[in-house]
Amino acid sequence: MPELRKDPITGRWVIISNERQKRPSDFQVERVVRIAADQCPFCPGREALTPREVFANRSNGSAPNGPGWELRVVPNKFPALKVEGGLEREGEGMFDRMNGIGAHEVIIETPDHSKTLATMGEAEIERVLWAFRERILDLKKDIRFRYILIFKNQGAVAGATLEHSHSQLIALPIVPDFVRDEIDGARQHFFAKERCVFCDVLRQEIASGRRIVQESADIVALEPYAPRFPFETWLLPKVHGARFEDAPRHEYAGLARVLKSVLTRLDRALEQPAYNLIVHSAPFSEEVRDFYHWHVEVIPKVARMAGFEWGTGFYINPTSPEEAAQVLRDVRV
Amino acid sequence: MPELRKDPITGRWVIISNERQKRPSDFQVERVVRIAADQCPFCPGREALTPREVFANRSNGSAPNGPGWELRVVPNKFPALKVEGGLEREGEGMFDRMNGIGAHEVIIETPDHSKTLATMGEAEIERVLWAFRERILDLKKDIRFRYILIFKNQGAVAGATLEHSHSQLIALPIVPDFVRDEIDGARQHFFAKERCVFCDVLRQEIASGRRIVQESADIVALEPYAPRFPFETWLLPKVHGARFEDAPRHEYAGLARVLKSVLTRLDRALEQPAYNLIVHSAPFSEEVRDFYHWHVEVIPKVARMAGFEWGTGFYINPTSPEEAAQVLRDVRV
Repeated sequence: MPELRKDPITGRWVIISNERQKRPSDFQVERVVRIAADQCPFCPGREALTPREVFANRSNGSAPNGPGWELRVVPNKFPALKVEGGLEREGEGMFDRMNGIGAHEVIIETPDHSKTLATMGEAEIERVLWAFRERILDLKKDIRFRYILIFKNQGAVAGATLEHSHSQLIALPIVPDFVRDEIDGARQHFFAKERCVFCDVLRQEIASGRRIVQESADIVALEPYAPRFPFETWLLPKVHGARFEDAPRHEYAGLARVLKSVLTRLDRALEQPAYNLIVHSAPFSEEVRDFYHWHVEVIPKVARMAGFEWGTGFYINPTSPEEAAQVLRDVRV
Repeated sequence: MPELRKDPITGRWVIISNERQKRPSDFQVERVVRIAADQCPFCPGREALTPREVFANRSNGSAPNGPGWELRVVPNKFPALKVEGGLEREGEGMFDRMNGIGAHEVIIETPDHSKTLATMGEAEIERVLWAFRERILDLKKDIRFRYILIFKNQGAVAGATLEHSHSQLIALPIVPDFVRDEIDGARQHFFAKERCVFCDVLRQEIASGRRIVQESADIVALEPYAPRFPFETWLLPKVHGARFEDAPRHEYAGLARVLKSVLTRLDRALEQPAYNLIVHSAPFSEEVRDFYHWHVEVIPKVARMAGFEWGTGFYINPTSPEEAAQVLRDVRV
């Protein structure tokens, strides 16, 4: 059983996921195994290679777990957390742990092995966002879960082990550190000013325009003022909303449009970089409606920064956000 | 001038260090340039290729900036921060910034191009630790600085651009996030219990022994209870002390001995992995004497974890610390 453990100094929760007994040779640097397209388990016709689907778009009425789908969601075959069992929160002396209970699912975004989120159509991207929403609403019913993390690793450098375009979902019985940090900061700002800090940032950024990549009726894509990484890009809804899954339908359409454009800009400016995409949304059980603001962060893997951020949370960024915004604005899409 | 910028949501400070005007082609993924040993700027006889030394061990009385040294400290030729100028803290609307004032130095640990910290003698490693102390004590006189970060990137994967064994020092006008998190947690523990949380961890770990890698009279090397990375290893002094630079001389000797042994164990268990080493010590201006406890963290680059931790601060670790401690204890040194 995987475990969730809490660092007694920083309060940071970590998943310890060692299922198999390992020999010393298993500890060598992992190499990404490239699976050839003709053996890809995410391609239509190979549905038997994945666990049974928990959600799918099948507009042609095709049967589950066979071909004919436009999008499929399946449990991860090698999950970091397990869905069965009790949390069993307990101490080990001064330490805190619980069972690694959670859901770990894979959203297979398209049947087409060759497409990426940047090259899919807007309607296809919107379908992916809609699937995120459907899965969140379903998993929220499980009262053991406090947070659902949705993310995408594009490219081997970003951690993707399969080429076929997919995202991942992890439902957690804890709120991860990075969300906790955002919430604490946003709460402080709200108590001081009675305003959402993200809304304040949006107002100032739209007025200045220097760090804006693109703006639509619903969504703003910008380079944040203090980015950790070169070309770190955030996409935020203009209208305040705490939870991704509660957004009105037209915001998904707007996000799909701007996301496609931003990913295309990154692909052209940086020659199809690997990237991580993370959906930031409010935890389930907390009343953060007024001060948290959902958004999407895209972090291309451009610089191999000198081991600084790796494990320290301290960042040196060689590219200013003004410069990055200018480069991305100048790309023709 | 590099800049320090604060994220308005999380309060995280970031260095924006874009000195040169860049063209889009400069944003491609950086490749580490291997400098051949016969052109290494850190080798004796090539002192003219580095900035002038700020510290050196020259037991033979040789003149500065020429050969004959055992250890040399020089300013970084491409510093992330600059030492000249005022901080000029200011706002940009709701954002906070200051000039990127700081020192960025390189500790060339040995004249021998082929040695690593693991293969140096204990006396040589102790000399490196002593040089850290000397530089901290000198730079502490500059009242603009709040924290000095000492770290080492071993191997290209860990961010090292030069092969010749060296560490780096960055003096900062702010306290980095990861130290702030530790201090907040340690302060909370102290207020609740009137005890140092690190001392409590040490007591429990020594009693249990499950996560101990090695123990000497002065120093304990252990795998922390909730490690972010496989084989993440901490070295802590047994006797409470908040600041690395205030440690008694015998602790440096003890640390050198255990560090050499731990790095040798990692080299043998994981086939000379790349790693980051970070000295965690108390900030200058804060009264944290009773509750902060200096230590050294070593993080080998074993797993390429699926983009999870990269930029999120959320960690999935496939190796339990009990398992890692067992593997490292079993290595013969």
